[in-house]
Amino acid sequence: MKLIKNNLSEKFIINKYFKKLNFKRIGTFDFENDGAYLYFKNKNYKISITTDTILEDVDFFSNDDPKSIAQKITTVNLSDTFAMGAIPHSYVINLLLPYNINDKWLTKFSHQLKKIQLKYGFYLLGGDLSHSNKLIISSTFFGYINKNVEILQNKINLNDDILLTGNIGESRIGLDILNKKILINAKLKKYFINKYLFPLPCELGPKVSKYISSMKDISDGLIGDLNDMLNDKFGALININEIPLSTKAKKIINLENGIKLEKLLNAGDDYELIIISNQKNRNKIFNIAKKNKIKISCIGKVIRKKGIHFDSYVDINNSKKFDHFS
Amino acid sequence: MKLIKNNLSEKFIINKYFKKLNFKRIGTFDFENDGAYLYFKNKNYKISITTDTILEDVDFFSNDDPKSIAQKITTVNLSDTFAMGAIPHSYVINLLLPYNINDKWLTKFSHQLKKIQLKYGFYLLGGDLSHSNKLIISSTFFGYINKNVEILQNKINLNDDILLTGNIGESRIGLDILNKKILINAKLKKYFINKYLFPLPCELGPKVSKYISSMKDISDGLIGDLNDMLNDKFGALININEIPLSTKAKKIINLENGIKLEKLLNAGDDYELIIISNQKNRNKIFNIAKKNKIKISCIGKVIRKKGIHFDSYVDINNSKKFDHFS
Repeated sequence: MKLIKNNLSEKFIINKYFKKLNFKRIGTFDFENDGAYLYFKNKNYKISITTDTILEDVDFFSNDDPKSIAQKITTVNLSDTFAMGAIPHSYVINLLLPYNINDKWLTKFSHQLKKIQLKYGFYLLGGDLSHSNKLIISSTFFGYINKNVEILQNKINLNDDILLTGNIGESRIGLDILNKKILINAKLKKYFINKYLFPLPCELGPKVSKYISSMKDISDGLIGDLNDMLNDKFGALININEIPLSTKAKKIINLENGIKLEKLLNAGDDYELIIISNQKNRNKIFNIAKKNKIKISCIGKVIRKKGIHFDSYVDINNSKKFDHFS
Repeated sequence: MKLIKNNLSEKFIINKYFKKLNFKRIGTFDFENDGAYLYFKNKNYKISITTDTILEDVDFFSNDDPKSIAQKITTVNLSDTFAMGAIPHSYVINLLLPYNINDKWLTKFSHQLKKIQLKYGFYLLGGDLSHSNKLIISSTFFGYINKNVEILQNKINLNDDILLTGNIGESRIGLDILNKKILINAKLKKYFINKYLFPLPCELGPKVSKYISSMKDISDGLIGDLNDMLNDKFGALININEIPLSTKAKKIINLENGIKLEKLLNAGDDYELIIISNQKNRNKIFNIAKKNKIKISCIGKVIRKKGIHFDSYVDINNSKKFDHFS
């Protein structure tokens, strides 16, 4: 899987920008081999595997800050890794680079990868490098989790709590601001655009894995992802007032030309975790979240009636739209 | 890493074409989860990881038989896995599909994947699916190997044997025939085009791993890959008459408008293995190859003089070209 293909300039790219990312770990062979070995210190763990691809013009734009692109390819995978209850271990990356990618781009991109690797403690095992017209990045992440723990996305029970980490809609508001759909002052603008360009995964997953029924990260919107978890077996009763929004997001919702809450319920790329768990574990989970300075909210519970339903406090427009999930 | 993105038709694609490839194995969650767990039965193994990408117009053409494309993405990875001394275990696949991909294409592609999986005994752990203008496929393969065995590509010693499995140049001749650079009778044409469209990995790697110094598969041509293995420390003396060629390839070389041997020495995509090993293990390795009905040749030995050198029997044109490696 060497990051090289018959081309000295590509060998140069590996040596200059990517070798620093293997942290000289055993099994990477300093990227001189066509493959790598994955070593785990502890036999009580199994490996989680997640993989994702991001594409120019779909998940980012060609003139986006390369640091943002590095953030996105790692966050989509780290978020899935944490949602599997696993701790990041290592990854491989498949880069399809347009020919106009230059030193500045590669320097920023690889520095951001290194920064994220150091933050979460994982290293680059290898990858491959080719050229194409569009920038396309696939990445496969390896995590470790106690071999006796297994996180499913739809193993849920009646009356289970529906919990949600962080705030929703931040990234979507940023995108709408970038697309000039929302006009707002410079300070708020910067805040939300940063949320869109630099989404962060929520690290709570592996810390609460033994107290939960199911867990999933929000990549397609709270409603869509929660609907996947209910899996035609159960429904959800959501307390709309408990939907976690930042003070800043509330300001945007209250603007005349702002964004509707409903839209935020369907907004992707928040990378917060939906956790479904037995009520008896609520305090344990909240205490762990508090200890880790992670915001968590109980937004509703699992009910027998299929579909996603809102309590009497629903005051958002077009809320009937959600009926199509019933 | 679900093979789904916000789109019913993509869910349909997963269910209809790809679910059959998980062989209902534990940890795949039947592709209902965003990630998978990798389970190994035996604690004495470690995991090998290889990854590769193939692109339309570079590694294949859009109107190529989808079975050939399935063969190529698996062979590039299986070949690296075997070269690591490992036995294939499972894989993930990242598909970027043009919108014109149809039922017929997906049926053929997925059937070929299933056929190859059954042949080598591995299963699909998961993947992701997106759309793009060009067909692009990345895939990451997991193999298992005894934890005490480690195959490097450049741990070689003076006077080691240089061994080569199979025959070289078959795929390249097929490509030249397809490109109408070589004109040949229908039977030979079919034979070589098949070698180009359906390259096979060499399975010898894991069977001889404990008797070798280094091993690498040929993806960039015998000369290029061997040169990588010598790694500026040693040279190679190659006995040109021992370079393994099929009787059919020899016919092509002897044609007036045929292909030069030198070109075949630099031809990629043969996926044979270059094995460098102590002379004392030659018989053991040859016996294992024989037992497994795999052709193997001793083509030369490691020498002190850097570069790749040919013995006195060199009669190929332009052989001085190789001097640039000295």
